Formats: sequence, structure tokens, C-alpha cells
Amino acid sequence: MMRRLRMGMIGGGPGSFIGPVHRIAAELDREIELVAGAFSSDAANSRAAGECYRIDPARAYASLEAMLAAEAAREDGIDFVTIASPNHHHLPAARAALAAGIPVMTDKPLTATLEEAHEMSCLVKAAGKPFGVTYTYSGYPLVREARARVAAGALGTLRKVVVEYRQGWLARAAEGKQAEWRVDPARAGLGGCIGDIGVHAFHLAEFITGARVNEIMPDLAAVVPGRVLDDDCTVLLRFANGARGALLASQIEVGELNGLRIRIYGDKAGLVWAQETPNTLELHYNDGRSEILHAGGGQLGPDSASRTRTPGGHPEGYLEAFANLYRDFSAQLRGEAAPLLPGIADGMRGMAFIDTAVKASRAGAGWVKLED
Amino acid sequence: MMRRLRMGMIGGGPGSFIGPVHRIAAELDREIELVAGAFSSDAANSRAAGECYRIDPARAYASLEAMLAAEAAREDGIDFVTIASPNHHHLPAARAALAAGIPVMTDKPLTATLEEAHEMSCLVKAAGKPFGVTYTYSGYPLVREARARVAAGALGTLRKVVVEYRQGWLARAAEGKQAEWRVDPARAGLGGCIGDIGVHAFHLAEFITGARVNEIMPDLAAVVPGRVLDDDCTVLLRFANGARGALLASQIEVGELNGLRIRIYGDKAGLVWAQETPNTLELHYNDGRSEILHAGGGQLGPDSASRTRTPGGHPEGYLEAFANLYRDFSAQLRGEAAPLLPGIADGMRGMAFIDTAVKASRAGAGWVKLED
Amino acid sequence: MMRRLRMGMIGGGPGSFIGPVHRIAAELDREIELVAGAFSSDAANSRAAGECYRIDPARAYASLEAMLAAEAAREDGIDFVTIASPNHHHLPAARAALAAGIPVMTDKPLTATLEEAHEMSCLVKAAGKPFGVTYTYSGYPLVREARARVAAGALGTLRKVVVEYRQGWLARAAEGKQAEWRVDPARAGLGGCIGDIGVHAFHLAEFITGARVNEIMPDLAAVVPGRVLDDDCTVLLRFANGARGALLASQIEVGELNGLRIRIYGDKAGLVWAQETPNTLELHYNDGRSEILHAGGGQLGPDSASRTRTPGGHPEGYLEAFANLYRDFSAQLRGEAAPLLPGIADGMRGMAFIDTAVKASRAGAGWVKLED
Amino acid sequence: MMRRLRMGMIGGGPGSFIGPVHRIAAELDREIELVAGAFSSDAANSRAAGECYRIDPARAYASLEAMLAAEAAREDGIDFVTIASPNHHHLPAARAALAAGIPVMTDKPLTATLEEAHEMSCLVKAAGKPFGVTYTYSGYPLVREARARVAAGALGTLRKVVVEYRQGWLARAAEGKQAEWRVDPARAGLGGCIGDIGVHAFHLAEFITGARVNEIMPDLAAVVPGRVLDDDCTVLLRFANGARGALLASQIEVGELNGLRIRIYGDKAGLVWAQETPNTLELHYNDGRSEILHAGGGQLGPDSASRTRTPGGHPEGYLEAFANLYRDFSAQLRGEAAPLLPGIADGMRGMAFIDTAVKASRAGAGWVKLED
Repeated sequence: MMRRLRMGMIGGGPGSFIGPVHRIAAELDREIELVAGAFSSDAANSRAAGECYRIDPARAYASLEAMLAAEAAREDGIDFVTIASPNHHHLPAARAALAAGIPVMTDKPLTATLEEAHEMSCLVKAAGKPFGVTYTYSGYPLVREARARVAAGALGTLRKVVVEYRQGWLARAAEGKQAEWRVDPARAGLGGCIGDIGVHAFHLAEFITGARVNEIMPDLAAVVPGRVLDDDCTVLLRFANGARGALLASQIEVGELNGLRIRIYGDKAGLVWAQETPNTLELHYNDGRSEILHAGGGQLGPDSASRTRTPGGHPEGYLEAFANLYRDFSAQLRGEAAPLLPGIADGMRGMAFIDTAVKASRAGAGWVKLED
Repeated sequence: MMRRLRMGMIGGGPGSFIGPVHRIAAELDREIELVAGAFSSDAANSRAAGECYRIDPARAYASLEAMLAAEAAREDGIDFVTIASPNHHHLPAARAALAAGIPVMTDKPLTATLEEAHEMSCLVKAAGKPFGVTYTYSGYPLVREARARVAAGALGTLRKVVVEYRQGWLARAAEGKQAEWRVDPARAGLGGCIGDIGVHAFHLAEFITGARVNEIMPDLAAVVPGRVLDDDCTVLLRFANGARGALLASQIEVGELNGLRIRIYGDKAGLVWAQETPNTLELHYNDGRSEILHAGGGQLGPDSASRTRTPGGHPEGYLEAFANLYRDFSAQLRGEAAPLLPGIADGMRGMAFIDTAVKASRAGAGWVKLED
Repeated sequence: MMRRLRMGMIGGGPGSFIGPVHRIAAELDREIELVAGAFSSDAANSRAAGECYRIDPARAYASLEAMLAAEAAREDGIDFVTIASPNHHHLPAARAALAAGIPVMTDKPLTATLEEAHEMSCLVKAAGKPFGVTYTYSGYPLVREARARVAAGALGTLRKVVVEYRQGWLARAAEGKQAEWRVDPARAGLGGCIGDIGVHAFHLAEFITGARVNEIMPDLAAVVPGRVLDDDCTVLLRFANGARGALLASQIEVGELNGLRIRIYGDKAGLVWAQETPNTLELHYNDGRSEILHAGGGQLGPDSASRTRTPGGHPEGYLEAFANLYRDFSAQLRGEAAPLLPGIADGMRGMAFIDTAVKASRAGAGWVKLED
Repeated sequence: MMRRLRMGMIGGGPGSFIGPVHRIAAELDREIELVAGAFSSDAANSRAAGECYRIDPARAYASLEAMLAAEAAREDGIDFVTIASPNHHHLPAARAALAAGIPVMTDKPLTATLEEAHEMSCLVKAAGKPFGVTYTYSGYPLVREARARVAAGALGTLRKVVVEYRQGWLARAAEGKQAEWRVDPARAGLGGCIGDIGVHAFHLAEFITGARVNEIMPDLAAVVPGRVLDDDCTVLLRFANGARGALLASQIEVGELNGLRIRIYGDKAGLVWAQETPNTLELHYNDGRSEILHAGGGQLGPDSASRTRTPGGHPEGYLEAFANLYRDFSAQLRGEAAPLLPGIADGMRGMAFIDTAVKASRAGAGWVKLED
């Protein structure tokens, strides 16, 4: 039997939304199991979280360092860590784990600042260990199908990309637990909305098109009175081949839930995908035909087909998409190729995007280069 | 720490669709783990399945009897079994497990025939152990919200129910592995489409309305040439309070995937829910207002809210609905109440429905009573 | 210049919904103009209606007889009449018009009773004048496209038809002006919901499939307390080739507006059309492909393409569909063929359907033949 | 009887899409009738068009001047003209008509250039005659409902507007008759896509919000090789109160038909409307409730309710929206108020928008003021 890989979580303590998501996603395909965690810097909170996760109480640690040390001493110690804490913890956590020779899966954005990202990049390259970044939406089967079709030329020459990420939960000043750190520069970093969701949209656009954005024209604002970080972003995009794009991300659009949507047009066809109805992909051809693809349907290519667990019509969603990233990561840990898993380069791209967008927007700089 | 409950699976071997679904669903909330299985009556196949599930090879048994005996001898033996094999195996499997004092979760329909169901019912009552039936769709948060709203009087007096279950995958004679046993009377039992999906629709109608169907007028047919069991069913319904209904289930509707939909009308309001877009529930009031509820949104009652794992806009689907049934079952195993989990009475209702529908349709009997 | 045909209206006076609809539809393509009317048997009301319609006050008559006499005496007299009055007026109005040699367009259902319909049929055949029945929904371009595709074999052998007509406006007892005559047997005839909307659904099913229903199993009820005529109908259908069907029509489904929908399945493909989103037609093939056709798009056949007035994406609706029937009727008046316009035979079919459904339902007769 | 107003058309000859649309829209409510036209500068073409429109052959003129002279001499001469010719004809046509004391309804954009627009504005003010501009989409009942709700404070303080106009018909170089003049600067003027559809989107945003855009950041491009005028536009918007917005208009988005959509967010609520499904309006409140309004439904205010002709569920569309503008214009001609009809000021706004956007985009000017 191939044994399950052992995961240690950093962050994800009481009140965390993303911690349990990482746990479910990692374990969904039974290639991985959560066995340990430094869920909180407060020992009692970490213990409480460990109980919720139903792991061995002895393996709920009060610090990452304690976890790394104790797990290294066990025969059945962790195989990797997942970083599920706020952005400013990503770098120190990854630094410690990589120093201990432990592979890392981290939540996005890569770090709180671009400077940290550069350091992270050096560390990762030096360590030579598997390293993944959970740009969740790239795990959806139909997103991968879209990427494959674009790569195969279905759209022709790329002309236009419109990617939107619509949320409304930060439309009010009083936002509750999840919102708190996201609107605090000390913990979230330079970007608010742009770092929380804009970076997902940016990654999705480059992931599906396989093309690189090399210029942007950002316009960010903090709309809700009293807010310091941006909560509404419009960014014009120019791709390497000259294709045009627009990225709209907002957290003040009342009534919107998690409306990540992308439309991509070439000279031969266009495609449309939306995260809230993730199991269909529309293709429109310039001869007037339209085609609807369904997750689990017989028309998907091998990679995207392998990323569904149920037949068409049995909706899979956010957790299953997230699990697909962990399946890729598991493959990498076992020494297999999993080229679609976002890695350090994708993480860096995102940080460059956030940093450039925030600074250029503040400076009113107009169009600026997006450095590689 | 509360330990995870240990599950043994019966059936779910190579090629099974529903076996892995049971495994994922059972484990999703980390209250249960799959540790053993009699996945196939072929020893090699059972071993192969055990490897796929990544369980201890020693616990992949070649027969249910072997599993029960070996597990009983272990300190960490199974806490319950899940029956994921074709319908004609349900009774013998449950009989053996219950005889060994092991609680049972079984796939639907309860058994292959009504006679078997009666025996099953006696066994379950005599055993006094937790017993669940996986009518999956009753696990969806918005289905539970619908039920709660109906119970609270939101629709007023029940007048009309239309429940449909549209599939197209059996529109052709050559149907592949999953189809094979479903169209074979020896393994599927008396009902084809009516037993495979009609019974889901029937349960959903009674589950949400909380009302009982007491007369039916069934019209079943085997449409695809050469098929013995029904593949297209229309059943008129009369509820105890006189409300009218129609149940349409078909597996020959080309292009339909898994289109379970229900519309319920009272004198005050109507509601609409569809399985393929499970995260919204529409309510229409007789003053012209319409309301859309979202899974994960703030307007859900406590039970349905507790059955989502992510905020609104992060789609949960079939596997998460299924997991909600296992969470109920886990609660029962721990001695807590979980009244929404379908049990032996619901299983019996379904078998009475199938049996009555098939026989009355063959006899051209018109309206017939549906016995309790 | 080809002159516009001159229309005289019967009924359609103050408070009428359908009178203005006939006027707009008839005139939309400028082949016809409303010039006269016997809008009401009350002279003042007829005059008032004439003013609303902005016709010459001298041509707003207090009776059909007066209109026929006066118009016959004019050089620019009416070319045809449209009957827009309640059902029990259809026969006497048509009788008088045909007796005067005037062609007739009548609203549906053909008459109030089947007996009247037989007389109407004899009169029409004897008169040898153009005669149309406004089954509105057969005027939609994509309904005609659907018919053409079925006729061309796109679906293969017909297997299954589900046609629904969902309304909610009669869910309450107090229903206002439009409802009044529709629930009164003396004016509406034998059928309530079945005659008002069920007959539309029935016609649509035969119109698109080109197949004839030869057996029905009706189940009609008056759900709202105190109502005499049916307001909720379920009718099982058997087509001549053995294909199965269900017709669901209801006026008590709170929240539904005008939900006429049809799904048709053959062994090769299925199609879906819905009146509330009339400008798209879905086709699903048994190889897994789905196709969306758009009104005004380049993929329509010549007949349906000629029935749109704007390019794709510029929604046309109910009035334009209705106008397509008048365009057909205008063609017939000019001596051209317009085989898709429903005529006396379609009117008779509808009456046979209503009469058979009402009587068989009352008698609890089960399956009954539907006479030609 | 109130007589019908008499309309003379300028342009709208053979091959015109918009000419017949103006005719149908003007006549739909029977307050207006087309009686004359200078449909083409080619006499034979004008005659042929007159025949298609079924007007008196004597009143199909070869020039506007001929029409004005001849109609002035008739007792039953035209009451107003509609200008349905390409943009560069708007000014000379309006100049001649106004000089003759004839009111004018003109298609949009107001003129081909901003300079012409200034002259038009002076002429209109000097003439003191009714003058309308057919920004069609402001005629939709639910657009008017949206405007009324915003004005009543339903959204709270305006924060964000996203308006899109998606088309794909110019994605290819070879575009056919309708496309020809639109891509020719000599006939279309300065703007391509921005003038053809961008200006509709701009008007819609200001019409519904009742707020003025006072700064824009335009980014226009000619994407299809060889094209001179823009075919893809992104324009960032800043409203007078600081609210942010984005306007996306494109004619190269393969598969899109006529996708005008608008989303508007305040601090209390958001609203969503889309032209291709024009009969519903979504409202989302910051307490989590969502509401769907239907055209023809009982929840509309008096103005929007009066602009529907059929009950809910009977789709009205583009032609009916257009007709609502003519109903307003008819009211103005009769001396009544019709404040929602776009007039010269709205026409000027549109031209200022086009001119500013094109020039600032070419100059790479970044944010620029939009003059009143």
C-alpha cells in the first residue's frame, strides 16, 4: 500500500475559515492526512484546534518551531507543512520549514510584501523542495479544460481577457473575524482587495491563457470610509502579444458572493467560465456555434477529466477544486510531475502584480511594466 | 480528543462509482475514517480496492463474514458498516452486520424487493442499532432549509408538488459498467429507473413537505428497445391532505445529466430547488415578492447553516451533501439525535413506493393506495 | 403599393388584455391595420374602445351585425375580422362573419364547447375563407426552428415529450377582471385552466413534434376553494408512434408567471425551449454535445429566420410571436400559402383535447382515446 | 378621437436595420404613423423602401428637402421627422427639418463629431421644438424602474458602476452591409465601437444613477487588423460624488450578441440588469436579502408599470423599449411632459464622451475631465 502523506498545519486555529478548507482538501483523495499542527501561537487555542481537527493532542503544538522539532524526532513525523496563517506569517513559516528540509504548501498571496517574496523565492530555490501556492481556482476541472483548449489553439490568437472577482462582504465597515486581518496593513501587507482576491483573478487570467501580462494600468481605492487598504480595484492589462484585458476586483459590491468570472476571446472563439457555476464551460465560435461543456462529461481532455470524482450533474465545487491542488502537490512529493500546480514562480508573479498595482495606483503612474 | 469512528465498507470495489463517494463523504468532516472493507467477493479485487483506498492491506477482506469476524477481534475494529453494493446484496449484508451488533449505513433503495424490505425492517427494529439510508439529496443544506421553512408554515397549506429527476445516460442500449446491474432485474430488483432515481425524487418530496403521499397513479415504461426494467416513469401523487403532485423520472432524456428538481406550492408561497444548482433556493410569495436564498448566506436557519462548510459563493455540492448524512449518522453513533437522517422507515417508504408503482403500472390499475 | 389589409375587431373593449395585443400584433409588420370594431355590446364602451385604438369613431360599432353591414357598404370596408371576445362568443361571431363572406382570425380555444366546435368546423369548411386560430406560441421563431429540426430528423425517433404551462395568478380566489370570465363556466366553457392554457401546451407539443397524441390520461382539479372550473391539470399523453408524454398546466403555482416550457427527446437528441426566454433553443445530442441556437442568429433555417425582425441579442417576445401569426394570416388573405398558421383543424384538436380531458377526468376514466 | 401623429423618415432605406425598427417602434402604440420618407438619396431606392413600408408612393421622396417642401404643402403633412441615417447625416438633416419648423427624433450618436454636436445643440435650442435622441435602452421598463429606485434612495450612496456592452459581430474583417459604414470614419465619425455602442452604455449609466461622470480614463483600440476606428474600449469612470465606475464596450468578443449589462452598487444595496434578459431586475440588499422584480409584475412603480403592455411572463423586448421612447416623444409633441426621453443635452453628453474618449485615448492622456 502506498502510505498517506502526513501534513502539519501552520495557522488554521479557532475561527479560521481557510484552515478547515486546507484540511478537507488535503484529505479528500486520501493521499494525505493531517497529523499535526501549530494552529495558533496561543497554546490553548492550538490545543482546541487540534481537538476540532481530531488529531493526536500531543501533536497540537504552540509554535512552528516546536512542531518541527517534535515531528522530526518521530518516525511517523510530518512530510510537509501547509501555511494557512495570515500573509505576514508566510515567510517566517516557510523559512523555518524549508530550513528543516520540509516541503511547503502555502496559501496565497505568497507573502505580505514583494521584498519578502524575493526572499521566499531565494529560499525555495535553495531548498530544492516541493513548494506549492494554493491559487484555488486553478484546481477546477473546467479551468484546466479551458487552459488545455486555449493551448491547443481553440480560440486562435488571443485578443481580449476580462476577469472579474466580485464580492460584497466588505461593503460595510463592521466586518467580523475573517475581515479583521484582511483590512489591516500590518497583517495583510500592501494590498487589500488586490491581494486577497485580485491576485486570484490575475493568476487565473495567466493560467488559462498561458500568456503573460507585461503592462498594467491600475486604479485602486479604499471606498469604505475609514479603510486603509484598497477594497475596489480596476486594472487594465496588456499581454505580451498585445492582447488587451481588464481585471475588476471588488469587495464592496453588495449582494455579490464570490463572483470570480473570466471571459477570453481570440480571433476564432471565445470562452466563458464562472466560479459560482463551475461545472460548465461555454465556448462560442466565430461561425455562430456555441458549445457547453460539463464537468464529468465525455468531452473533457484527460487532465481535466481526471480531476472530477463524480459523473456530470453531480456538482463538485470549491473544496474539490482545492483538493485538486493537493493531489498535484502529493504527486510532486512522490516525485511525479504536476506542472499545473502553482509554484514559487506563480507566487512571485502575484506579488509583483500586487506591489506594482498598489504603488502605481498611488503614484497615479498610468501604464507601468510588470516585471518578471 | 473525540476519536474518529471506524467504517467498514461492503462493496465499492473496482469500477464502483458509489464506493469512493461513500468514503469521501464519510471522511469529509473527519468524524469517521474508512479502515476496512469487503469490497468485492473476489479476493484480488478486494485487495486492489483496499490499495486504492489506501487502507491497511490486512483489512481488505474477501467477504463480509471475514470482515466481521476479524474486525470483532481487533481492539480498533470497525464501528459500523456501509453497504455500497448492488441492491440485492443490501439485505444479506445488513442481516450479517446487525447480527454481529454492528450499525449499518446502506445505500438506497433499501433492498431489491419489498419482501426483503419487510425482513430488513424487522431486523433493524430487533437489533436496535443506528441504521441509515443514503438518500443523498436530503443532505443538501438548502433542501433542509426548504423543509424547515415548509414546517414553519412559509408556504401555507400544501397544494402542489412537482418533482422531476431527469437523466439521459441510459438513452442508449450500450451503457457501460455502471449501467449494467441497474438494468438487470436479478441485481437491481423490481424497479429500474423508479428504483434508481425515482425513489430519490419520492423521498425528496416527502422530506421537504413533511407530508405523506397516500395514493399514486404510476405509468412506467421500458422505452429503449430490449430493456426489461423501466427507464421512464411518470407517477401522479396524492398527498394525505389532498395536495396534488407529479413525479417524473427518466433515464432516457438525452442531454440531461442529473436533473433532480422540485417545485412546491402552497396557498401562500412556492419554492423551487434544483440539484444541479444546489446552492440557491427560490421562494415566491403570493404578494409578488421573490427571494433567493444562498447556501452559506446569513438567512439560513441553524440546522441548514451548520451543514455548510464555506461562505456563500464557494460552491458545495454532491459530496458535501452526502457528507451531511454521514455527519448525522456519526451523531447517532455517538448517541445524539439526528432526526433528519433517513432511516429504516424512509427506506420502507421507498420500497413500498417502488413496489406499488411497478405492480400498479403493469396492471394498469389506475390510482392505488400507497400503504404505510 | 400593396395596400394594408383592413381588420375589424370583435371584443377587445375596455379592460381587455388580448384586444390590444391583437391590434399590435396585426399591425406590427404593417401588412394590416385596424380600422373598425365591435368592441363591446355596450355602445358607449365600444366607442370608448374605438377612441383608445384611435380609429375613426364612426367605425366603432355596438354590434357585430352593425359592423358587418356598415363595413360591407364601404369601399374601404374590412377585409377580415378578429374575434377577441370570451370563448362563448367565438361561434356566433364567426358564424355571422363567415355568413357575410368575411375571413376570420379567432382567439383560442376555438369555442366554449366541443359541440360548438363541430358547428364552427362545418361553417368554416362550407365558407372556404381563410380562418386562423391564434395559438400564439407557435409564432415564436425558435418554436418554428424546433419544428423544422424535428421534421428534419434531428431528434431521431420521438420518445418523450414534457410540456408544462405554469402560472400562479389564479392562486387566490379574488382575481380581478381578467380572471372573472375565465373561471365562469357560462363564458369560458367546459375547461378552466385546461382551456385557457392547457390547450396552448397541447398545441405546442403537436406543433413542434409533428406527431399526434392519440391517448390521454387526464387528472384535473379545482384546487382553490369555491372554484368550479379546473385550475390545475396533469395529463399523461401517448403519441401515435408510442412516444410518451406529460402535460402539466396550472394556474395556482404561486410565483410562476407564464411558464410555458417544452422538452422533447428522441433517440438521437433532445431539445428544450421556454417561453420566458424565447430567444434561445437548446439542443443536446447523444454524443454529449450541446448546442445553443439564438433567434436572429445565422444558424436558423429560412422560415424561422424570416420571422425575426432584429439581429441576435435584441430580444423579441410575445407581441412579435403573435405578429408572426398575423403575417401568416395576411399571406393567406393574399392567396399565398402559410401552412404553419393554426387553422380550423388545430382549433378542433384543441377542443377535442379539452372536452376529452374534462370529461374523462370527471369520470375517472383512466386512459382514453383522443378522437381526431 | 385623438389623431395619430404623422412621421416622416430620413434614411432607413433598403438594407437598413434601424429604419424598420423606428417604424415599428413609432407605430406600436398607435399614437404615430409613418406616412412619408426620404429613405435614400437614390430616388429608386427611396421608392422601393416606401413600397416596403407600404406608404403612399407619392410620399417616398428622393431628398429631405423635397419631403419637407411637399409635406408642408399638404393638409395632412408630417408632424415630425425621424433621422435614421448614418451619423454624418444627422446634423444636415436636423438643420433642414428644424429650419422648416419640424420636430426631430434622431438616432444616436447625436452627430458624427463634437463640433457638429455643438451646432446641433444651438439649432435645437433656437428652434424650441421637441427633439429626442433614441438611446433605446432607456426605454426598457425595468431600466426606468431601476432609475426610480436609485432616485428614491434604494441603493444608498452611490459607490460603483460597472456597465458593459459586449458584441462579437465585428470580430472578423469581412462584416457585411450593416458593418460597412460603422467602421468608416467618414460616415461614422470619430468613434467606432465607442460611438456605436459605448455611448449607449454611457447614457445608461448616467440615466439610471442620475449621477454625472466628470472624469474618464479611456483606453480604446482597433483590434482587428486593418481597422481604423476603435472596436474595443475600456473606460474608467469617476462620478461627481466620487463613485467609481468602469465601462467596457467591445465588438470583437466572439459569441456575444448584444450584451449590454449594468451593475450598480451603493452602500445599502446593489442592482443588476441585462438587456438580453430585460424583463427581470435584481436587487441585493446589504442585509443579505435578494429580490427579483419582473416586468409586468405588481411591484413596479407607476412610470415603469405604464411602459409594459402585457402581464409578467409575456416577454417584451427591444422593439417595445424603443416604442416607449416614441410614446414619450408623442407626449411631448402633444405638449405633455416626458422628462425621461433623452434630448439634446443627453445627445451632447454622449458626443462629449465619445470625443473626449477618442482623443484622450490617442494622446495617452490618462484621466481627463469630461466637460459638461
